[in-house]
Amino acid sequence: MNNAYKELEQRFRRVNLLREALGMLQWDQSVTMPPGGANARGAQLAELKVIIHEIITDRRTEQLLSDVDISRLGRWQAANVREMRHLWSHANAVPKDLIAARSKACTACETKWRTARASADYKHVLPDFKVVVDLTKEVAEAKASALNIPAYDSLFGQYAPGMSFDEIDPIFDDYLSFLPKFLGRVEARQAATPPPLELKGPFELKAQRHVARYLAEMVGLDFASARLDESDHPFSGGVPEDSRITTRYSKDDFSEAMMAVLHETGHAMYERGRPSEWHAQPVGFSRGMVIHESQSLIVEMQACRSREFFEWAAPMFARAFGGSGPAWGADEFYKRATTVKPSLIRIDADEVTYPAHIILRTQIERALLAGDLLAVDLPGAWNEKILQLLDICPSNDAEGCLQDIHWYDGAWGYFPTYTLGAMAAAQIFKAAIGENPMILTSIATGQFNPLMAWLLSNIHEHGCLFSTQDLLVRATGRKLDPGAFKSHLHERYLS
Amino acid sequence: MNNAYKELEQRFRRVNLLREALGMLQWDQSVTMPPGGANARGAQLAELKVIIHEIITDRRTEQLLSDVDISRLGRWQAANVREMRHLWSHANAVPKDLIAARSKACTACETKWRTARASADYKHVLPDFKVVVDLTKEVAEAKASALNIPAYDSLFGQYAPGMSFDEIDPIFDDYLSFLPKFLGRVEARQAATPPPLELKGPFELKAQRHVARYLAEMVGLDFASARLDESDHPFSGGVPEDSRITTRYSKDDFSEAMMAVLHETGHAMYERGRPSEWHAQPVGFSRGMVIHESQSLIVEMQACRSREFFEWAAPMFARAFGGSGPAWGADEFYKRATTVKPSLIRIDADEVTYPAHIILRTQIERALLAGDLLAVDLPGAWNEKILQLLDICPSNDAEGCLQDIHWYDGAWGYFPTYTLGAMAAAQIFKAAIGENPMILTSIATGQFNPLMAWLLSNIHEHGCLFSTQDLLVRATGRKLDPGAFKSHLHERYLS
Repeated sequence: MNNAYKELEQRFRRVNLLREALGMLQWDQSVTMPPGGANARGAQLAELKVIIHEIITDRRTEQLLSDVDISRLGRWQAANVREMRHLWSHANAVPKDLIAARSKACTACETKWRTARASADYKHVLPDFKVVVDLTKEVAEAKASALNIPAYDSLFGQYAPGMSFDEIDPIFDDYLSFLPKFLGRVEARQAATPPPLELKGPFELKAQRHVARYLAEMVGLDFASARLDESDHPFSGGVPEDSRITTRYSKDDFSEAMMAVLHETGHAMYERGRPSEWHAQPVGFSRGMVIHESQSLIVEMQACRSREFFEWAAPMFARAFGGSGPAWGADEFYKRATTVKPSLIRIDADEVTYPAHIILRTQIERALLAGDLLAVDLPGAWNEKILQLLDICPSNDAEGCLQDIHWYDGAWGYFPTYTLGAMAAAQIFKAAIGENPMILTSIATGQFNPLMAWLLSNIHEHGCLFSTQDLLVRATGRKLDPGAFKSHLHERYLS
Repeated sequence: MNNAYKELEQRFRRVNLLREALGMLQWDQSVTMPPGGANARGAQLAELKVIIHEIITDRRTEQLLSDVDISRLGRWQAANVREMRHLWSHANAVPKDLIAARSKACTACETKWRTARASADYKHVLPDFKVVVDLTKEVAEAKASALNIPAYDSLFGQYAPGMSFDEIDPIFDDYLSFLPKFLGRVEARQAATPPPLELKGPFELKAQRHVARYLAEMVGLDFASARLDESDHPFSGGVPEDSRITTRYSKDDFSEAMMAVLHETGHAMYERGRPSEWHAQPVGFSRGMVIHESQSLIVEMQACRSREFFEWAAPMFARAFGGSGPAWGADEFYKRATTVKPSLIRIDADEVTYPAHIILRTQIERALLAGDLLAVDLPGAWNEKILQLLDICPSNDAEGCLQDIHWYDGAWGYFPTYTLGAMAAAQIFKAAIGENPMILTSIATGQFNPLMAWLLSNIHEHGCLFSTQDLLVRATGRKLDPGAFKSHLHERYLS
């Protein structure tokens, strides 16, 4: 240990505490803040971000990162410096004024987007969106040149540190050639069996809230150090000792709220499992959004859309909601939860067609960035692609290129992590149940301990010690590979 | 305007945003945070405080404060620099290590105090309390010497900037000589009239929540930019555009929750009325805790314990809680709200005997600071004094020297602001109704606009432009003076 290292730890401890404060204020903004607080909150959040950016890009930080003697550090410390350098290099790659200008443009564009989506009027957001595209290009080019990586990787790499589209392109291409035939077979098979029986609501919100909390607890969330609230869009926030997950309830259908809670609990459990000794340091952070999404999808899609899960959950749901009859049987729950039907809306998509939504968005954002597609031509390009991929066509742009907040809000390069996370989830879950077959057996009795214990020691506890690919190799024996995901789909939808 | 001034504004804008973030996280801590989040939150709050302290005590801030050319500034700017210098001089007066040591000692002592109070066991907290007393002495001496003011003033001055006990001692002495005879007359008079009829509960919490919100709205709180929640101890927090007030409800008695909401709404209205152009700068902050407490007490004690208020509120309460009969009459509400009875517990005290509680605490904390009283002798000194002042004696220390968190938590010099606030409230309210007699008339119909408009233009909008005394002189024609408070008590309790 040397003094430069100690000082770096202190600086990044501060960065972490400010990130935690920021996260809590964002939770409050989405869950409890009255609308009148928006401007004040915006100013608070912006200032905290600026302070974080200043600490990371400070000359003293640069000096310390250059002075620190890695050879005298332990394994975790050395990895910590590596992660600090990663944060430093990304933060320094873009001029401060450009960051501020883009941030401002995104805020303005997001506001316009809300109206545009509500009225399905792309033209309303187009002028602001053009500015966002231009500034995003500038940011990507600045990063690409400073970090010597491709422009799109420089954006994607913010969410998936260390990953490159050299590795991802073949994975996406593979899925594109897999999907049409597979989807056809699944649809044919579904058409040949009777559709699942429908559950008739309404389902009391009070009961839904109780069940949602119970499910989160069963997976492992301890409400002495967590909250479950409601927000427009479910999310997972807070800090390891104070998880804040949200969902939204509908009287007509309780499944959606329950699946959202399971998903967000998966995220929260990852945060809670980060190495406690290192959780305030960069090396103790989560290993990016591909792994984060894999943890939520292992719970939601792998564990809790399984036949085993519904064996336990179906009678519990029936008791909790006072339901009875064949529609409340485990088989019918499973059938409903695994129905495949191409949808115009990404967040309503099943797991077979979801990757098509992601690949479409990835292709389009790369084309926009490269200048091969102009913002004005986005709706047409979108509609053409979704027709080609899933044989469906939006009747308006609210069902098409206006449906997601991401581009308008500035989250470019984020979309791929959803599908890569789904693939990593299948790969990791397969390894877990291969190593401990009791994982699935226990889920059939509502016990998630064996699964969560495996994830804790194979994924969560490692923080950022390894790269995404190394973490996957250690946990599953191989790099990210769509094979397990395709096998999973085969088994679930065709066997 | 000069560059040094501009840079100072930027620095203190950051201080303000960090204070706002801190305030929101403290609200969350008291209202929504699960218990497991305590340590993480403690670390976040401490770091934000350290950052604020660093900005204020930074050498660059000192340089700018010395460079700034006040002669070229406008009136508000010049006052802003004066307030910045005040913050700077207080922050710089105490070595950083001493602040940190005391802060740590207070946290430890507060934890012990919770157990000690629950078990009425002063010895349990004594060792930690001794440390707090010693470190508080050190802080007071450091401040006194740096600021060249008496030690107790240096603590009191944190909450009542610019005020000195030279002015306060005569006020307290005056009250001590006024109280015994006055209290005797009030008690005799009360004994000669039948006691107020009791309201029989339980009162549904749902109805209480609705009425509480309605009362806050009537006073002027707009819930598009405010929240009303529940916490162990009512408080007012948030920012001007996002007020966060809390109360607590009891099934047996709704008056307590309603009065707490009125009190906290008074605080919130002051914050909301701060000058909007300056609210992010020191000159736009509230004018200390004496004025702050006066604003809450004007609403709670002056306006809403008046006969006029109950003329409007009594029938509204009866409708809201489905009450009927003589106990629900305005006169009975007024009688219940103005019953005088010496109490061992400060927060249960009536407005006649409340100042005795404060004077007792002020005398004791000054004696502890001066070394005239040792921490070990606190319980005895307390019991002797309360017997002497109010002729009652605690049966244990939970009813005595352990009842308030303040000393154990580090808030030394705070107590006087309660009673000085009550006196300022009477003085300001008298001036307001003297200038606009419709203020009381309108309260009898549930209209608070005339009162709040007067407070806005005479108090709220001035922020820190004037000193506490100057603000009072401008609003009422004289400095803080117990005369109006004594007249108020005469009129309410003896006329």
